[in-house]
Amino acid sequence: MPDPQSAIRNPQSGEPLFRRMTVVGAGLIGGSLGLAARQAGAVGTIIGVNRSAESRETALRLGLVDEATEDLAAGVREANLVVLAVPVHRIVALIPEVARHAPESCLVTDVGSVKSPILQAGDAAFPDGRFVAGHPIAGQERSGPAAARADLFQGATWILTPSARTRPEAVERVTALCGAAAAQVVRMDAAWHDEVFATVSHLPHLVAYALMDAVLHMERGEERLRYSAGGLRDFTRVAGSDPDMWRDIFLMNREALLRSVTAYREAVTRLEDAIRIGDGEVLRQQLLQARIAREELLHGS
Amino acid sequence: MPDPQSAIRNPQSGEPLFRRMTVVGAGLIGGSLGLAARQAGAVGTIIGVNRSAESRETALRLGLVDEATEDLAAGVREANLVVLAVPVHRIVALIPEVARHAPESCLVTDVGSVKSPILQAGDAAFPDGRFVAGHPIAGQERSGPAAARADLFQGATWILTPSARTRPEAVERVTALCGAAAAQVVRMDAAWHDEVFATVSHLPHLVAYALMDAVLHMERGEERLRYSAGGLRDFTRVAGSDPDMWRDIFLMNREALLRSVTAYREAVTRLEDAIRIGDGEVLRQQLLQARIAREELLHGS
Repeated sequence: MPDPQSAIRNPQSGEPLFRRMTVVGAGLIGGSLGLAARQAGAVGTIIGVNRSAESRETALRLGLVDEATEDLAAGVREANLVVLAVPVHRIVALIPEVARHAPESCLVTDVGSVKSPILQAGDAAFPDGRFVAGHPIAGQERSGPAAARADLFQGATWILTPSARTRPEAVERVTALCGAAAAQVVRMDAAWHDEVFATVSHLPHLVAYALMDAVLHMERGEERLRYSAGGLRDFTRVAGSDPDMWRDIFLMNREALLRSVTAYREAVTRLEDAIRIGDGEVLRQQLLQARIAREELLHGS
Repeated sequence: MPDPQSAIRNPQSGEPLFRRMTVVGAGLIGGSLGLAARQAGAVGTIIGVNRSAESRETALRLGLVDEATEDLAAGVREANLVVLAVPVHRIVALIPEVARHAPESCLVTDVGSVKSPILQAGDAAFPDGRFVAGHPIAGQERSGPAAARADLFQGATWILTPSARTRPEAVERVTALCGAAAAQVVRMDAAWHDEVFATVSHLPHLVAYALMDAVLHMERGEERLRYSAGGLRDFTRVAGSDPDMWRDIFLMNREALLRSVTAYREAVTRLEDAIRIGDGEVLRQQLLQARIAREELLHGS
C-alpha cells in the first residue's frame, strides 16, 4: 500500500495540495469549499458527485466543480481527496462505498455536524488512518449549490476530530486545505464535539421546533401565531430548518442531545418555579445570569 | 364632571386631536408616539415625564417632547391625554396617581404588554371609563429616548383592550391617535390578549433565558458557549432583554404564562420521547409540522 505521506506536496513547489478533489454533495458547504480551494490554488481538478441533475448542472455552471457525475464509484476513482458533504446519515452510508472505490492513497474527510458515529465508520472503513472527521461551523440559512460562496469559511472555525488511529499527516493536509479556505482549524475530541454541539446547536433547534409545536397544539394556536412579533419570530429561522436533516442529526447525536435536553428541562423548571411562587428576586437573578451568559457569548468568542 | 365627548375635536377643523398630551416615560415607545403624533398634527403640546435627567434632556433635544419634567402631578395637570409608557409594574403603580392629578376630562392610555391587571387598575381608578388599555406591537431591540423614531409604528399592530366600562368615544379618540401614528388598531379582550402574548412573546423569552441558563449550568458551560454559531445565537437577542422588565412581565402575566409553559413542556417531551425511542418518522412529522407553522407565521400574517 502506498504511504499517504508520499501524496503530500510542497505548497511552495506550486503543485496543488490535492491534484484531484472529489466533493460528494456539491451544495452550500461542498461547493463553497471547491470555490475557495480553487481560488487558493490548493486543488487541481474538482469532481462533483451529486444525485440531482439540476445540482450537477448548477455546480458546473457556477464553477464549483470541473466535472460532475452521479456515479460515486467513477467520481472517486482517481481522487487524492474525497470530501463527504452530504447529510450525516448519508455520510455514514457512503463511507464504505468510498473505501471500496477510491485509490489506496486517497484521503477522505467529511463536514457532518455529528462526529462520533462518522469517525467510527471512517476508522472502520479506513483502518490505515486516512479518514479525517471534520465539521466547519458555517451558516446554513440557505443550502444547495446556488448558495455556495468562495468566502463562506472566511474566519470560520473548522473543527477536526481525529482519533488515535487517524494519521497525523492526513490531519495536516486536511488542515492545510481548511486554511486555504481561510478557516481556523480547531482540533477536538469527537465525543466532546458531540456533547458541545448537542448543547449549542442541536438543543436550540429542538427548543425552537418545540416552541412552534407547542403553539400549534394550543387552543386557537394559529390565531395566536398571527400576533407574534419579536419574541417568536427570532426562533423561526431555526424552526424553518430542513426536517429530514435535523431528524437525522437528533437521532445520530441522541445520547448527548438527551443529556442537554435534561439540563434544559431543569432550567425551564427553575424559571417556572420562581414564577409560580412569585419570587421576583430569584427570577431577576436568573434572567440576569442568562443575560451575562449572552454577553459572554457575543463578546467573549 | 365634564363629558369626555366634549373633548373630541373634529380633525377637519384643524384642531389637534389632543391639545396637550403627556407622555409618562418618553423612551422608545412614548417618544416615538410623540414624534409620530406631532408629525401628523394630532397633538398640540407634548409634555414628557421622566425620572432621569438624561432622558429628559435627550427627549427635549430630539424634539420628542416640548416640555420635560420629573414631576408627575405637574406633568399631567392640564393634559387632555396621558400616555403611560413605563414598565408594566410602574403603570399599575402610577394609575392612581394620574387619577389624582389629571383633569376630570383627561383620557388615559398605556402601552404595557400585559393587559388584564392594568385594565383592572385603570377601571378602578377611572370608573367613568376614561382609561383605554393598549399595547403597540413594536420592536424593542433598543430602548430609551435616543432610539425613538417617527415611523416606529408604521404598519404595526396596536392592540386596544377596552372593558365593558371603557367609554366608546375614549376608545375612538385613542384609535384616532394610533392611526395618526400609522398603526393598525385591533381590539381584543384583555384576558385573551394576555393568553396570546404569554404564548407568542413571554414564553419565547422564558425559553431563551432558560436555554442560556441551561448551558451555564452544564459542565464546562462557558467553553461550550464559545462554539455557538447559528443555533444558539438566534436566541441571544431575546435573552439579552432587560431582566427587570421581563421579571415584571413574567410575574404580572403569571397564570397565562404558566399555562403556555405547560404546553411547551409537553411539546419538548414529545420530541424527547421520539428521539429516545428513535422513532424517525414521528420525529420527522413533528419537525415538519413546526416548519409549516413557521411558514404560516411568516407568510400568513
